[in-house]
This record gives sequence, C-alpha cells and structure tokens, in this order.
Amino acid sequence: STGNGLEKAEVTCRLTFHVQNSDAGPLIRYNTITALPMDRRREILKRTDTANEKFGNFLSEGIADGSIRTVNRYVAEQLLTGAINAAMHLKQWRKIDNIDSAARDYFDVFFNGLVPRAQHQDN
Amino acid sequence: STGNGLEKAEVTCRLTFHVQNSDAGPLIRYNTITALPMDRRREILKRTDTANEKFGNFLSEGIADGSIRTVNRYVAEQLLTGAINAAMHLKQWRKIDNIDSAARDYFDVFFNGLVPRAQHQDN
Repeated sequence: STGNGLEKAEVTCRLTFHVQNSDAGPLIRYNTITALPMDRRREILKRTDTANEKFGNFLSEGIADGSIRTVNRYVAEQLLTGAINAAMHLKQWRKIDNIDSAARDYFDVFFNGLVPRAQHQDN
Repeated sequence: STGNGLEKAEVTCRLTFHVQNSDAGPLIRYNTITALPMDRRREILKRTDTANEKFGNFLSEGIADGSIRTVNRYVAEQLLTGAINAAMHLKQWRKIDNIDSAARDYFDVFFNGLVPRAQHQDN
C-alpha cells in the first residue's frame, strides 16, 4: 500500500475501528477466546500476533521515514492494538452519531498527545 | 494536591504504574473480577469508576488550565485508565530494567503523541 508509515497506521486504525463498530463487527473480541478449544485458541492468537506485528511495522516504517516521532515501537504497538480491541466497547459508554468523528476522537490522543503542541515547542 | 492538570495526570500515571509493577501490586486486576460474588463485584466496579472519574477530572482540570490539549475527556480517561490497568501485563512482553524509564516509555505516546512535534506545527 502507498503512503508513509503514519498514514498507513492511521488508515489501519480508522478501518479497524469502523469494522469493530459496524453490524459486521466486532472483528476482534479477545474476551471470548477462553470459550474456544486450546488448538483453535492458539491459532487465533498466532493470527492476532501477526496482525499486531504488521501494524507495528507501519510504526517502524513511520519512525524510519520521519512521519512518526521516535517512540518505543513495541509499547506503541501494544497500546494501539489494545485500544483497537477495546473499541468494540465504545457504544457502551458513548452514543456514536458519526463513526468518523468517533474514530477521530478515539485515536486523537494517540496521534496528537495530551501535551499542547505549542507549549511543547517552548521547552 | 498541587500542580496543574497535566502534572497531576502524569504523577497519577507514574505512581499507579509503579504499584502495578511492584511486588505489592497489581493494584488493579480486572480480569479476575468475575471470580467474585456479584455484590462484591459491584462494590469494586463502583470504586473503580470513582477512581477513573477522579483521573478524568485531572484531565478536565488540565484542559481548563491550558496544560492539556483540548481532547475528548471521556475518551482519554478510558484509554489511559485502560492502559494503566493493562500495565500489569508489561512484564510478560518486556524486560523491565528500570521502572522509571519503563513508565516514561509506556505513557510517552499518550502524552506526546505519534505525530512528530515539529511537523505538526508546519500544518
């Protein structure tokens, strides 16, 4: 796919968020995994690890091409894939009128941080 | 306590991270809650909600005093308290040599974001 690492990470977050919150979703629902027999469980966890790693590779790509700040790739991968997984619970505590603005709100902290942008520059 | 909203949020993250990863921890372990009788469960969930809301109030305080960017307070509250909860699993996938630098790495994405600081200013 095209685009820099940041764009790839953003698109992945947005698309997965859509599926998680659509009628076709959730795509990912870890908390039911213990209901599966061990073999099937291992298979799914392996696939999940592969998907998460692929997402983490977008982060590494972004760090390399300068579109993503130099963060700890593994920490960021875990936090973001964890949040994507948790996105299916969003409807429980927030009325979703517009899925695009909900996705923007949801990932905003990860992409732009809590610290105001201007203030950080002064340091 | 003293300090602006950002400082209060940072200190809370750091201290809770310490306790979660110390021998005294974990302080919070949601995934075992289903083992409890319903009354006790409700009591703990209520206490958890109160603690999370207190953390969310630090975020609101920071947004009001300008130390935190104008984010969706409830989304940020859920993501950060979720990450604090998940911090007890950190040892499973990362060797923790220094708890302070591990905590810094862990919350870095939340506070500073993935988007490089300088680049964002250009837009």
